[in-house]
Amino acid sequence: MTTRTEKDTMGNVEVPADAYYGAQTQRARTNFPISGLKPHPALVRATIRIKKCAAKANLATGRLDAAVGKAIVQAADEALSGAFADHFVVDPFQAGAGTSHNMNVNEVLANRAEEILGGERGSYRRVNPNDHVNMAQSTNDVFPTAMRLAALEMIRLLKTEVEGVVGALRKKGTEFDGILKSGRTHLQDAVPIRLGQEFAAYALAVEKNLAGIERGVPQLAELGIGGTAVGTGLNAEPAYIDLVVKELAAETGLPLVRGANLVERMQNMDPFVALSSSLKGLAVNLTRIANDLRLLSAGPRTGFHEINLPDLQPGSSIMPGKVNPVMAEVTDMVSFQVIGCDLAVTMAAQAGQMELNVMMPVIAYNILFAMEILKNCLHQLTTLCLEGITANEERCRFFLEQSVGLATVLAPRIGYAAAAEVAKESAQTGKSIRSVILKKGLLTDAELDQVLAPLPLTSPGVH
Amino acid sequence: MTTRTEKDTMGNVEVPADAYYGAQTQRARTNFPISGLKPHPALVRATIRIKKCAAKANLATGRLDAAVGKAIVQAADEALSGAFADHFVVDPFQAGAGTSHNMNVNEVLANRAEEILGGERGSYRRVNPNDHVNMAQSTNDVFPTAMRLAALEMIRLLKTEVEGVVGALRKKGTEFDGILKSGRTHLQDAVPIRLGQEFAAYALAVEKNLAGIERGVPQLAELGIGGTAVGTGLNAEPAYIDLVVKELAAETGLPLVRGANLVERMQNMDPFVALSSSLKGLAVNLTRIANDLRLLSAGPRTGFHEINLPDLQPGSSIMPGKVNPVMAEVTDMVSFQVIGCDLAVTMAAQAGQMELNVMMPVIAYNILFAMEILKNCLHQLTTLCLEGITANEERCRFFLEQSVGLATVLAPRIGYAAAAEVAKESAQTGKSIRSVILKKGLLTDAELDQVLAPLPLTSPGVH
Amino acid sequence: MTTRTEKDTMGNVEVPADAYYGAQTQRARTNFPISGLKPHPALVRATIRIKKCAAKANLATGRLDAAVGKAIVQAADEALSGAFADHFVVDPFQAGAGTSHNMNVNEVLANRAEEILGGERGSYRRVNPNDHVNMAQSTNDVFPTAMRLAALEMIRLLKTEVEGVVGALRKKGTEFDGILKSGRTHLQDAVPIRLGQEFAAYALAVEKNLAGIERGVPQLAELGIGGTAVGTGLNAEPAYIDLVVKELAAETGLPLVRGANLVERMQNMDPFVALSSSLKGLAVNLTRIANDLRLLSAGPRTGFHEINLPDLQPGSSIMPGKVNPVMAEVTDMVSFQVIGCDLAVTMAAQAGQMELNVMMPVIAYNILFAMEILKNCLHQLTTLCLEGITANEERCRFFLEQSVGLATVLAPRIGYAAAAEVAKESAQTGKSIRSVILKKGLLTDAELDQVLAPLPLTSPGVH
Amino acid sequence: MTTRTEKDTMGNVEVPADAYYGAQTQRARTNFPISGLKPHPALVRATIRIKKCAAKANLATGRLDAAVGKAIVQAADEALSGAFADHFVVDPFQAGAGTSHNMNVNEVLANRAEEILGGERGSYRRVNPNDHVNMAQSTNDVFPTAMRLAALEMIRLLKTEVEGVVGALRKKGTEFDGILKSGRTHLQDAVPIRLGQEFAAYALAVEKNLAGIERGVPQLAELGIGGTAVGTGLNAEPAYIDLVVKELAAETGLPLVRGANLVERMQNMDPFVALSSSLKGLAVNLTRIANDLRLLSAGPRTGFHEINLPDLQPGSSIMPGKVNPVMAEVTDMVSFQVIGCDLAVTMAAQAGQMELNVMMPVIAYNILFAMEILKNCLHQLTTLCLEGITANEERCRFFLEQSVGLATVLAPRIGYAAAAEVAKESAQTGKSIRSVILKKGLLTDAELDQVLAPLPLTSPGVH
Repeated sequence: MTTRTEKDTMGNVEVPADAYYGAQTQRARTNFPISGLKPHPALVRATIRIKKCAAKANLATGRLDAAVGKAIVQAADEALSGAFADHFVVDPFQAGAGTSHNMNVNEVLANRAEEILGGERGSYRRVNPNDHVNMAQSTNDVFPTAMRLAALEMIRLLKTEVEGVVGALRKKGTEFDGILKSGRTHLQDAVPIRLGQEFAAYALAVEKNLAGIERGVPQLAELGIGGTAVGTGLNAEPAYIDLVVKELAAETGLPLVRGANLVERMQNMDPFVALSSSLKGLAVNLTRIANDLRLLSAGPRTGFHEINLPDLQPGSSIMPGKVNPVMAEVTDMVSFQVIGCDLAVTMAAQAGQMELNVMMPVIAYNILFAMEILKNCLHQLTTLCLEGITANEERCRFFLEQSVGLATVLAPRIGYAAAAEVAKESAQTGKSIRSVILKKGLLTDAELDQVLAPLPLTSPGVH
Repeated sequence: MTTRTEKDTMGNVEVPADAYYGAQTQRARTNFPISGLKPHPALVRATIRIKKCAAKANLATGRLDAAVGKAIVQAADEALSGAFADHFVVDPFQAGAGTSHNMNVNEVLANRAEEILGGERGSYRRVNPNDHVNMAQSTNDVFPTAMRLAALEMIRLLKTEVEGVVGALRKKGTEFDGILKSGRTHLQDAVPIRLGQEFAAYALAVEKNLAGIERGVPQLAELGIGGTAVGTGLNAEPAYIDLVVKELAAETGLPLVRGANLVERMQNMDPFVALSSSLKGLAVNLTRIANDLRLLSAGPRTGFHEINLPDLQPGSSIMPGKVNPVMAEVTDMVSFQVIGCDLAVTMAAQAGQMELNVMMPVIAYNILFAMEILKNCLHQLTTLCLEGITANEERCRFFLEQSVGLATVLAPRIGYAAAAEVAKESAQTGKSIRSVILKKGLLTDAELDQVLAPLPLTSPGVH
Repeated sequence: MTTRTEKDTMGNVEVPADAYYGAQTQRARTNFPISGLKPHPALVRATIRIKKCAAKANLATGRLDAAVGKAIVQAADEALSGAFADHFVVDPFQAGAGTSHNMNVNEVLANRAEEILGGERGSYRRVNPNDHVNMAQSTNDVFPTAMRLAALEMIRLLKTEVEGVVGALRKKGTEFDGILKSGRTHLQDAVPIRLGQEFAAYALAVEKNLAGIERGVPQLAELGIGGTAVGTGLNAEPAYIDLVVKELAAETGLPLVRGANLVERMQNMDPFVALSSSLKGLAVNLTRIANDLRLLSAGPRTGFHEINLPDLQPGSSIMPGKVNPVMAEVTDMVSFQVIGCDLAVTMAAQAGQMELNVMMPVIAYNILFAMEILKNCLHQLTTLCLEGITANEERCRFFLEQSVGLATVLAPRIGYAAAAEVAKESAQTGKSIRSVILKKGLLTDAELDQVLAPLPLTSPGVH
Repeated sequence: MTTRTEKDTMGNVEVPADAYYGAQTQRARTNFPISGLKPHPALVRATIRIKKCAAKANLATGRLDAAVGKAIVQAADEALSGAFADHFVVDPFQAGAGTSHNMNVNEVLANRAEEILGGERGSYRRVNPNDHVNMAQSTNDVFPTAMRLAALEMIRLLKTEVEGVVGALRKKGTEFDGILKSGRTHLQDAVPIRLGQEFAAYALAVEKNLAGIERGVPQLAELGIGGTAVGTGLNAEPAYIDLVVKELAAETGLPLVRGANLVERMQNMDPFVALSSSLKGLAVNLTRIANDLRLLSAGPRTGFHEINLPDLQPGSSIMPGKVNPVMAEVTDMVSFQVIGCDLAVTMAAQAGQMELNVMMPVIAYNILFAMEILKNCLHQLTTLCLEGITANEERCRFFLEQSVGLATVLAPRIGYAAAAEVAKESAQTGKSIRSVILKKGLLTDAELDQVLAPLPLTSPGVH
């Protein structure tokens, strides 16, 4: 590989000749061959946007030379269009606080801006990664701000997919609203419910998870940019700080505001902890719902089989004709991963010390990975599974009529203890609740028709 | 022990003769000698309140006999005043969904109401635990409602203590606002900051945690009571459902409302997951701050020693005169416990199946335990530690003047690379940044006085 | 309350007049009213044993006055017999490293020894908590050693209960070995298996968890006692160190040895992390098995209902006659708690700094609480649930004959693809695999009898 | 993209014309675009090895046609040499139990074997993925066996790197054995210790973590292969089962044995839970040690600065000359990730149901990812950081002489209380312990020389 020699404050470094990145990125590549992964594109985009807006703000205050500033802005726009994508190369597991990631972006934009101004990559004659691209910035305020912007972008994408899940579940709630079935509590026979009620409850639960995620947006939108090295704003002019936030709001269309206290904004990872917790909360409900779907569709012969999930692929390499609830299963797995990510975030967030939390890169990685797999998984879940669920109405009715839970209807009439005797006899003899009541002469056939009419049993009231 | 014989639907049970509880509680005592712990008083109170309000609602609809209803209300009031405290005895680790806890309260109130009406404990002639005290209720709607009420009560108490922490930190923020010191990032010398800025940032971080806890209150205040066994409301009259919510709001002074979907309210544990996550978020910041306090006060001779924590107790059984940062340490330990509790809640919440989450008791236990120890710990932290913190101003100044981070001030003047040379020479020779600059002739003494005047360095601006 | 005035190195303290504990314990009571919990008795016993054995070792080296030493030993023996139980009062959430717990034991034994020698509580004329009871010790070596001893004692007790579970499951494995049923993978119809094979597999899984717990014993049995304040052994004579370990081995009957490196033994919490992980591993399998038991016994009418769990208590306050799998449910809840405890241990263990991990008390609390509830829960699970499980053989056969999984038997004969056609037709038409094969003329009735004879299908072989 | 049409039991699928994989892999690609990640190479290799050894075993029993079997073996050998690497394409987040992964390998080998026998990819005339490559296997026994083999391979690689860490730490232990310093407990001045003792203790701690990982190897080496669909071995001949294990042992050089109970081997994920726990245990100690390294090297001016970590890269984009402990920081981040992975494993392992744990793919992903990043990180940590650590002996001595902890030496002579007075005076006046003792006339200069000679203070004994 052809290389060029670059020099940073620690000495010479051989950098691939065609790389837009420079010496510090190369050092990071050498130091951190840990996971082999690339930075999440949303984090790269967010960081580029900060550089662009900082350049515009520094142009506006007059601190940055006009030609240099415009070249940086142009370089950033090119990068946002997807150019140089292969030049953002620092492993997510890297230097504390994300210095290497920040320098990677500084170097790529500096080299491209240098080119725009007629210079050569690696020369840094007119555009310096630290002095110009990073002007008035520190990794310590850039990186958490980039995390915020990336998280907000991903929330927007995730939201669409969560809404898809909610919509599909709600539609099934309506579609199945007339299907009566036996409820199950403790996995034991319980009183009647409608299949549609079950799906409507799932829809609402997920909708509330989405609301929970969105409740955290204001905290994410309050930026610490301008705080520089320790949050005090040293080397950032007051005017710049307001300008850069306004530029970012305009650039992203997000409701961004300047943090009330930049020291706090830099070191307090709670907005990410809260987001991660909300993702965990979503994962918890997704697991629960996916498990219910797997349970309800269990069979075809040896399980509940009250619903059918769409067939997606052969389910076994040895058992012919087997079809498994694969989208529900992968939803479980993604959810478990999200819960694992949340713990990594927790560990990292509590490890902050003094003016900085140097563990930010692992927080960024986990939050963005969690949202990435959730987003993709939920899209598949909605389109390949939820939307195609059908009900086995007969099977639902079969269990409904068998359920020992029907004895509950009697309790207000004959008391809990007497009703329990009916239930016990039904369970022991295998006879239906209805037939035991008749046999015991507790109610007439006509009364039973009225009392056990299933639809009313699924709404409030004493029957 | 003298016993009386009670009969429930499964047969005879020997119950201590003087117990207000009855057969089912006794079965639970026999079945669940797991932790030896008692139910949290807030959970007991919450459940009693539900029974009281349900009786009032059932009186209002006319379903409950007036004398019986009034006796139940009186029994509940007595219990709320602290009577019968020793009769709530079911281990937190118990039957799924908390049936045993619910029956414990049903039985105690039934027996006391029976007494009020002239009967004997255990006779259940006029007042039956299931038919009267539990009228229109199921464990499945009572228990999650009790969890909500208990959580809201504890949030109120916890809030006071968190505000205490915020207030104490903020006061120190003001008190120490004039004390200049070296910032530290990556635990390495960084640019100047004021000790007061550090404490103000801590205060704000904790204040935001409190806001996060409070954002979850509306979800907790939306009740599922009235859903009965599976959330459909079977055996609960529509009028009762509205009434019981209103009674509870009046009884507790809390902003309680009826859930839009009682099926969802019963099975979706997210309000508790969210609360637990918020507590975890608080714990994360408390850990971080406690660790900083331990670091800043490390010494007296071998550490940073920029602040002093109040001496509370001898710190070592072998090292005479040692005093440790015990309140910060216990705050760490409490925080770790809260994080552990959150995982137990997560595990339990994802284990719900179909119409019910039978793991509610372990959720209740962990949420209430977490709030209990947080509340108590923060009270001690504020009063015994935070309020008494003092600063070692000289020590702060010593580090400030030594810090290699001061080289940052030069970067906007002479560029990052040249400033790095100054820093390097300072680090290698042990000379101060100031003296290296002078030696190199980069700035005059007068310029240095201006550039390195520390106070301006702790606010935005290029110096 | 009557008090006496004691003085420690920080000043005067009012101590309850009849307390065996003294000034430092009283300070801890005032400082740490956190959880209201008492120390686990096994931790108290372990600490007393260390004091007793240290006194004997110090007597043997001649450093401790004979009368004083003997009085301490006698006081310890009294305490081990249960005396003074109410005098060990320090909250588990306390001073870092457990200094307060250690001083509590030092003070109780010092005061009792003083009494034995004719003095008064609180006078410390002849027996000083630090100089005599704590001689050659530091909290820093005493507390982790006490944790080890307490853990080993609890492992012994837990082992008995885990063996009970294994034995009961294995017995059911034998009892149910002739009962054929349909396997289920992905909760979908699979090939035949015997109910006994399922229980035998559970037994073996739990047995392996026990082996995992026991693999950690040698690490726990390697003591750091004698390392004193930082593991170097300052103020502990070399002869004492060997003697105290020998005394402890004799006193406890445990295979205790002196650690090869006392510095490491003091700060490395891995033996506890490993134990906690093993408990988590056990909890994971218990959850899985408990969930299977709940699934297999689901019903009676609306679920699998292949087995019956013993009826233990009425299952619902509203649904008469309902009986729930309460022991399986509480096992799940206990398991979730154990997993939560493990996270608290993890958090605490990684927070060690330099020569000490001051978070030991929260590690001790969680490990002992986890073992306590596991031990008690498993005892109940075995005796009240597992031993009484019965099988519904007919129900098992019903599902076996219906299962679409039987098509697998055909694959080696007619190929996977052709067998899949059979399965598909069976699933779509509702006809049994057998009848589809006959209809398609793939095999004769006689061949089918041979091929589908269920018992051979549950052992290796191509049929 | 050119495609070919393949047909599986669910219908036609368009597959890229040049793909070695087939219909089911293509379905999985369409169904699971979740993370965009590829399977871990160790998992692919392990699965190919199973296919190769199964073919050899089936050849030996005569069930598999010789030409077909040999072609499969050849195809597997080619794949093991790295061919077709781009054809293993199923996302780690995929169908439950890893069916898609298994079929991916089945299809690639079938198509390559078909080619070897003169046929065309996608024709499956002579070699069928299910009937031949998967002969006598099920995903349900193949996938957990592949997880075991992959885990064992990665343990071997990880071991080398952990040994590197141990070796480097131990070497520093020796190198620094003569350097005296102040111990710190609770981050407060404590008694003397040697810097080498600290590093030796770290080395031993990590060595014990490695031993813990290795204690789990026998469980991983006990295979469930041959159990096929539910562990009973249906469609696998008894002779085959023994043969395939022997072939695998020979192929891998690992101490593999046949599981005693194949049902248990298939469903019990404990060997992976235990491995993951051991990795977590390692991560816990790595975090602790990395944190200590960051603390000890804090500075250069404002921290402890007792040691120097090698300079690896510029540490700040804004603060010139700053150098951060980046390898220690990334070690923390990797450790937090490993702890997060462990939770995902825990969640997945407890979610097994009946005969199978369908969550295996997420377990495999997390275990292999954790070992991958640990292995790579530890290599960098050893070579770029640990081996180059140097000590600042003077700084160590400075703190040693200042430390108030020296008062401990006096306690055996003058009692704890009197020694505490010395410590207190030293702390309050800023005078050294030595000078306070002299001033108080407690010891003569000569006695002090003897008592405070630092080297003896770092070994057992009363001075």
